Amino acid sequence: MKLWDKGFNTDKKIDHFTVGNDRELDLVLAKYDVIASKTHAKMLGKVGLITEVESKALISELDAIAKSIEKGDFTIEETFEDMHSKIEFLLIEKLGDTGKKIHTARSRNDQVLVAMHLYLKEELTEIKSQVKLLFNKLLLLAEKHQKVLLPGYTHLQIAMPSSFGLWFSAYAESLIDDLFFVQAAHKIADQNPLGSAAGYGSSFPIDRSFTTKDMGFNIMKYNVVAAQMGRGKVEKATAFGISSIAGTLSKLAMDITLYMSQNFDFISFPDELTTGSSIMPHKKNPDVFELIRAKCNKIQAIPNQLTLITNNLPSGYHRDLQLVKEIIVPALQDMKACIELMTFSLNEVKVKKDILEDPKYDYLFSVDTLNEMVKTGIPFRDAYKTMGKAIENGNFKPKKDIDHSHEGSLGNLCLDMIKAKMKNL
Amino acid sequence: MKLWDKGFNTDKKIDHFTVGNDRELDLVLAKYDVIASKTHAKMLGKVGLITEVESKALISELDAIAKSIEKGDFTIEETFEDMHSKIEFLLIEKLGDTGKKIHTARSRNDQVLVAMHLYLKEELTEIKSQVKLLFNKLLLLAEKHQKVLLPGYTHLQIAMPSSFGLWFSAYAESLIDDLFFVQAAHKIADQNPLGSAAGYGSSFPIDRSFTTKDMGFNIMKYNVVAAQMGRGKVEKATAFGISSIAGTLSKLAMDITLYMSQNFDFISFPDELTTGSSIMPHKKNPDVFELIRAKCNKIQAIPNQLTLITNNLPSGYHRDLQLVKEIIVPALQDMKACIELMTFSLNEVKVKKDILEDPKYDYLFSVDTLNEMVKTGIPFRDAYKTMGKAIENGNFKPKKDIDHSHEGSLGNLCLDMIKAKMKNL
Amino acid sequence: MKLWDKGFNTDKKIDHFTVGNDRELDLVLAKYDVIASKTHAKMLGKVGLITEVESKALISELDAIAKSIEKGDFTIEETFEDMHSKIEFLLIEKLGDTGKKIHTARSRNDQVLVAMHLYLKEELTEIKSQVKLLFNKLLLLAEKHQKVLLPGYTHLQIAMPSSFGLWFSAYAESLIDDLFFVQAAHKIADQNPLGSAAGYGSSFPIDRSFTTKDMGFNIMKYNVVAAQMGRGKVEKATAFGISSIAGTLSKLAMDITLYMSQNFDFISFPDELTTGSSIMPHKKNPDVFELIRAKCNKIQAIPNQLTLITNNLPSGYHRDLQLVKEIIVPALQDMKACIELMTFSLNEVKVKKDILEDPKYDYLFSVDTLNEMVKTGIPFRDAYKTMGKAIENGNFKPKKDIDHSHEGSLGNLCLDMIKAKMKNL
Amino acid sequence: MKLWDKGFNTDKKIDHFTVGNDRELDLVLAKYDVIASKTHAKMLGKVGLITEVESKALISELDAIAKSIEKGDFTIEETFEDMHSKIEFLLIEKLGDTGKKIHTARSRNDQVLVAMHLYLKEELTEIKSQVKLLFNKLLLLAEKHQKVLLPGYTHLQIAMPSSFGLWFSAYAESLIDDLFFVQAAHKIADQNPLGSAAGYGSSFPIDRSFTTKDMGFNIMKYNVVAAQMGRGKVEKATAFGISSIAGTLSKLAMDITLYMSQNFDFISFPDELTTGSSIMPHKKNPDVFELIRAKCNKIQAIPNQLTLITNNLPSGYHRDLQLVKEIIVPALQDMKACIELMTFSLNEVKVKKDILEDPKYDYLFSVDTLNEMVKTGIPFRDAYKTMGKAIENGNFKPKKDIDHSHEGSLGNLCLDMIKAKMKNL
Repeated sequence: MKLWDKGFNTDKKIDHFTVGNDRELDLVLAKYDVIASKTHAKMLGKVGLITEVESKALISELDAIAKSIEKGDFTIEETFEDMHSKIEFLLIEKLGDTGKKIHTARSRNDQVLVAMHLYLKEELTEIKSQVKLLFNKLLLLAEKHQKVLLPGYTHLQIAMPSSFGLWFSAYAESLIDDLFFVQAAHKIADQNPLGSAAGYGSSFPIDRSFTTKDMGFNIMKYNVVAAQMGRGKVEKATAFGISSIAGTLSKLAMDITLYMSQNFDFISFPDELTTGSSIMPHKKNPDVFELIRAKCNKIQAIPNQLTLITNNLPSGYHRDLQLVKEIIVPALQDMKACIELMTFSLNEVKVKKDILEDPKYDYLFSVDTLNEMVKTGIPFRDAYKTMGKAIENGNFKPKKDIDHSHEGSLGNLCLDMIKAKMKNL
Repeated sequence: MKLWDKGFNTDKKIDHFTVGNDRELDLVLAKYDVIASKTHAKMLGKVGLITEVESKALISELDAIAKSIEKGDFTIEETFEDMHSKIEFLLIEKLGDTGKKIHTARSRNDQVLVAMHLYLKEELTEIKSQVKLLFNKLLLLAEKHQKVLLPGYTHLQIAMPSSFGLWFSAYAESLIDDLFFVQAAHKIADQNPLGSAAGYGSSFPIDRSFTTKDMGFNIMKYNVVAAQMGRGKVEKATAFGISSIAGTLSKLAMDITLYMSQNFDFISFPDELTTGSSIMPHKKNPDVFELIRAKCNKIQAIPNQLTLITNNLPSGYHRDLQLVKEIIVPALQDMKACIELMTFSLNEVKVKKDILEDPKYDYLFSVDTLNEMVKTGIPFRDAYKTMGKAIENGNFKPKKDIDHSHEGSLGNLCLDMIKAKMKNL
Repeated sequence: MKLWDKGFNTDKKIDHFTVGNDRELDLVLAKYDVIASKTHAKMLGKVGLITEVESKALISELDAIAKSIEKGDFTIEETFEDMHSKIEFLLIEKLGDTGKKIHTARSRNDQVLVAMHLYLKEELTEIKSQVKLLFNKLLLLAEKHQKVLLPGYTHLQIAMPSSFGLWFSAYAESLIDDLFFVQAAHKIADQNPLGSAAGYGSSFPIDRSFTTKDMGFNIMKYNVVAAQMGRGKVEKATAFGISSIAGTLSKLAMDITLYMSQNFDFISFPDELTTGSSIMPHKKNPDVFELIRAKCNKIQAIPNQLTLITNNLPSGYHRDLQLVKEIIVPALQDMKACIELMTFSLNEVKVKKDILEDPKYDYLFSVDTLNEMVKTGIPFRDAYKTMGKAIENGNFKPKKDIDHSHEGSLGNLCLDMIKAKMKNL
Repeated sequence: MKLWDKGFNTDKKIDHFTVGNDRELDLVLAKYDVIASKTHAKMLGKVGLITEVESKALISELDAIAKSIEKGDFTIEETFEDMHSKIEFLLIEKLGDTGKKIHTARSRNDQVLVAMHLYLKEELTEIKSQVKLLFNKLLLLAEKHQKVLLPGYTHLQIAMPSSFGLWFSAYAESLIDDLFFVQAAHKIADQNPLGSAAGYGSSFPIDRSFTTKDMGFNIMKYNVVAAQMGRGKVEKATAFGISSIAGTLSKLAMDITLYMSQNFDFISFPDELTTGSSIMPHKKNPDVFELIRAKCNKIQAIPNQLTLITNNLPSGYHRDLQLVKEIIVPALQDMKACIELMTFSLNEVKVKKDILEDPKYDYLFSVDTLNEMVKTGIPFRDAYKTMGKAIENGNFKPKKDIDHSHEGSLGNLCLDMIKAKMKNL
């Protein structure tokens, strides 16, 4: 902030501090502001607050702006505080006084809020699709490698036989849980807040049922104070949703980095997905997965960040709420990148066969071997003594042709049932 | 931990550290362990792993234990590590070898997990009911006081007219959003994890479809590794749900403490809900609401606490997961107490009438007054100039008979629509 | 991440994901990388790993780069991964093979770490200076307005007389506590990690005592594994320090927004520090203070964010640690902006006199009035009854010429002692 | 909270909710309340607010209470709200009216605050001692096992040789950083807040310099509002200190659980420190270390918990602050137990020798081998080519007699310097 000492006047200082990186973020959100503005213009015409001619003129100009946004031509110069002022400027430039009428019966707070709802709906929908792609990829891998065994650990100690089939599809089924939260967040976002104005509604006879339908919202956030209280809350709901996914991806990434270590050596990836070292030929650094883990862990910090900013504020708008968007927008971008890159990378995973041939893993089979003896009718205590002695004498012969047949076990993965569960979501 | 230096042996040290307050928490969870054990015993009989006679004997003893739990007679003495060992002890005491068979084809991890799912389902259902009671109370208050005006603030500055109707029902409608998350958490809990054993299933031919139906779960958590990964995750899902409610209650409590301050003086409560001071007769300390706020803020810290404990652990059971229950159980108890006490206290709220008679609030009406002039046909700029002059000269006459008629505004609260939204949840 | 689907090759995808905004952040850190590189070059010459001529050539070129950084000419083009590769490129461009020798006996991890230590030391020193300016400003205000009374609240209820003198200097003295943490963070940063290489040292006979002295570090982080474990930890230490300051500023900002509300109306600021509304002439929105509060609350979330990223990672470098800098660098910039703007704004604060003339505040004096009666010899119970009756009958006469004389009370602010405490820090 | 429905009256409900587990926590804090009360009684006598006789009588009774606390005889029955009311009751019971005079010129808020400062000072001092014991243990182990090599990992990939000497002493040196924060917290706690009363001082001529000296505080928290603002803040400072230690212990515990896994198998512990399985003889579950990790991770969540409870509250006392003690007291107990148990357990650690004999670790030596060739005069590029070919042909001979001699490297651990750094703290 050194520049402030060099003759800049007060206004500049304040401006710099208050505007922040709003312009950059608004390039992401502008599309949704235009959608909401079009609906607002239609409604104003419909209820007679502006003429039909004015309404159409506004809609037509907003369509033009929408196109420029889509093409990537839309810019917010430093002379504009944010997207709202730039869009209004463009409308006035083209339409004169008619342009000014777009702001009838709404407020800036209103606009930010409805744009955020529309944006989050779309992002959550896209993330849901991405998660489904990852889910499908994991199920494909589970099917492909379902017979390849893997040590199962408890306490990081060798415990019982697992399999790549179990491992891959476990993450798939876990993702369904995460989507319950994405859905909850989507339901919260899918309520029209437009019309809350500064948080207390308006004396103009606006038609909120019309705008709800026109923007494709499922329902209205009726109470205008409740709508305004949604600022910060709808973003936090979204943060809960993505941090749930992030938790799953982070855990998967942790498993991967461990399984790539020479001390496990269960899976590997081609060179372009790892970073090596010219003098350490054994090195296959899992940078991509470490960054997925780190970014997902950062995402998991978002709900708390948003809580700290919004908590203990009495009801009603506070400028603090403006800071929320600089947190949620990059978090959503990170989330999408992580899911995409995880899916992309898993495409290339190579699993090692015959891992359990290493005698170090023989004890994995002790429980099953005992169970088999019990099933043949030998009383548990006798079976246990026999096996105990065998282990002591080094004669323990693991029964490796394991037979796990119950639902969800490594011999009966129920992949179709898991697929059906996702479908019924 | 000084006592450790006084001759206690190693085992005691370790025991003290590892058992923690498990026994106390298990008194809450024992009921659910018994339910799951009954189902497990039925299933073992059904698939022939034990005889029908053994199965019935186990069920009958478990019923007896369930009754003693209900009556509050069940205890976990220091000689038992936890509820599981106590219950097994009771079964063996009564049934001898048959008692030992209850543990066939399951593990401790399995038991904790399924008991937690059952417990959380019930708690979330109860919390949902409690929230509905609070919702109804808020709507009743909104209806009763719908005409009583209140200043609406933005930036804590006087902004626009609001009303008690708007204020009370805003919190009601907000609670619906919170229930979306409670529902998501309930869906995650409503999946049967029993059969995952130590996290890798079992070689016994257990019937998980049967246990799913018998315990009333909606569906199975199929993959056994996924089921095990649910430990920590289902609690975190619950924490998301209740921290969402807690955010709403905390904000309401903040409003209440502010509105009870002499500087606002909008509402009051009878003496038994406030603490006073014998020498400061004006004092009506809102201790109850401050504690609701504080406890709700503590609850909002729970998701992050759980994330810190479970994060970056590779898949598979770790003892760390045992610590999760000492966080979620008290949090649920706090949550229920907060909702109940908020509902109970709101019963007694007295709202002040004629607040807006105080001329300090006249400017609240400036926007509406201007809108009215505009609606009569006066161009905005002229109206604005006229009003600006009136204000400057101290002649500003606020038009206090405000007419907000659009959906969700103070003249049209849409309480029935909000009720319907809750119903359709 | 849509662009990835449009024919970009794998390497680009990975690059984009892994590089992130490193280049932008590195423009801030490059200065420190150059300082450490100069020291490293000197040391290599000193111990004979390169010749004196080579050493001098490297130092001279690094000086040139330092100048270009200072002038703002230094850039990191997209063809370079980060500052390190750009700086090495410049050295090689000018010096050929000699340029390559700068990397002898160090690693990238080493460089990032030492640059971060140097950067944090400087930032923490600057923040300490800024805090002292704010401290001085607050003491000046306390002195200037020491006689102006203010209501003191407990539970947001009117409680006892306070004063602007007490209020301003309370925040000053609180800032001293925050500086204890800034100092602790500074001590942690003030340890030379250079020489840890990839985290396990090097087989070259480097002279770490020399580099410690040459860069002005107080002491060495001896153990190379400990030095490497400092990554993430030194940033978290810094985050503790600034989040402590942020907590104080956030609370002050909360007080200010409350005191600016028409319901309190204790202080005001000139127009350029508030945002108004053309139609609501009473509005003086405290945007600057709300943003200070929000940014400070965001800063308070940083320690937890860093913990989530670094926690439960085993020892040794992980790529996750690279993400830490994109969190701490903007946080430090926000912190500095908040302190500066708070100091700047307080310059303009106007305090309202005669607040306590409003009879609503009379009860503030009840405790003191009672104490005075007690001090004249009237037994407490009799005094209490007398006053109780007076209050009941509306005859209570507050004794407003309060006399608080003990150290730290409103009549004896001990500003010099507080100043001395800061000095002795 | 079911009991509330069963005819309990309002007061009971409120009581139950507001008192919480204060009584239990107060048993820990009572000792410090008595210390402060003694000082207060002395001061009241000194300044003449009570007679010398009264002062002595109070001190004598407080001494008796102190003894009963030390013996563990002190109880707080349900009829008392907290320790303060119980202690006052005892004084009045014994001394009649004189007992009532103890509360002259102070408030409950005052008492809690000063007791907390005294308590935290003592706890932080004890924790510092405990950390030093752990530090010494780690240095002893580093010395004992300094020659035993260990693989050094980056990205969890085999990277460079490390050693048990490096590993143990790295955690020792890291603990010094943590103590910087413990010291900062101690400095904050070591300021006398007594005399702040309800947060605005008192009209009685109390002598705060005297009480500061008498209780052994380093300095006074002068400003009474600042003293009151310390509530929540001094606990958070403490939380920063212990969460710093917790971060180090958690990481060490993570390393230990990994190194105990059969896939690493670097260290082991005797049976009483692990939990096994009768049928899986290989299992040595590191429960103690997993619980240390989990409890330390829970501790790391404390600063954020405290921030959420105290943040965005305007200055002045709020009942919310009462909730802080139920968080910090158990956290300190957990912290002490974790440090003690880690120290205790490390006593028994067995390190495996000859780990690096396993050819899987040969590549660890590639960097050193190359460096050695370079040092003999072979140009880097030629050396690199030669080694590359050797690796390709399977002829790579790692030069295992590594020679790391610089400060802090595995051949020169600088344990004495690290000890000196701790001493100079």
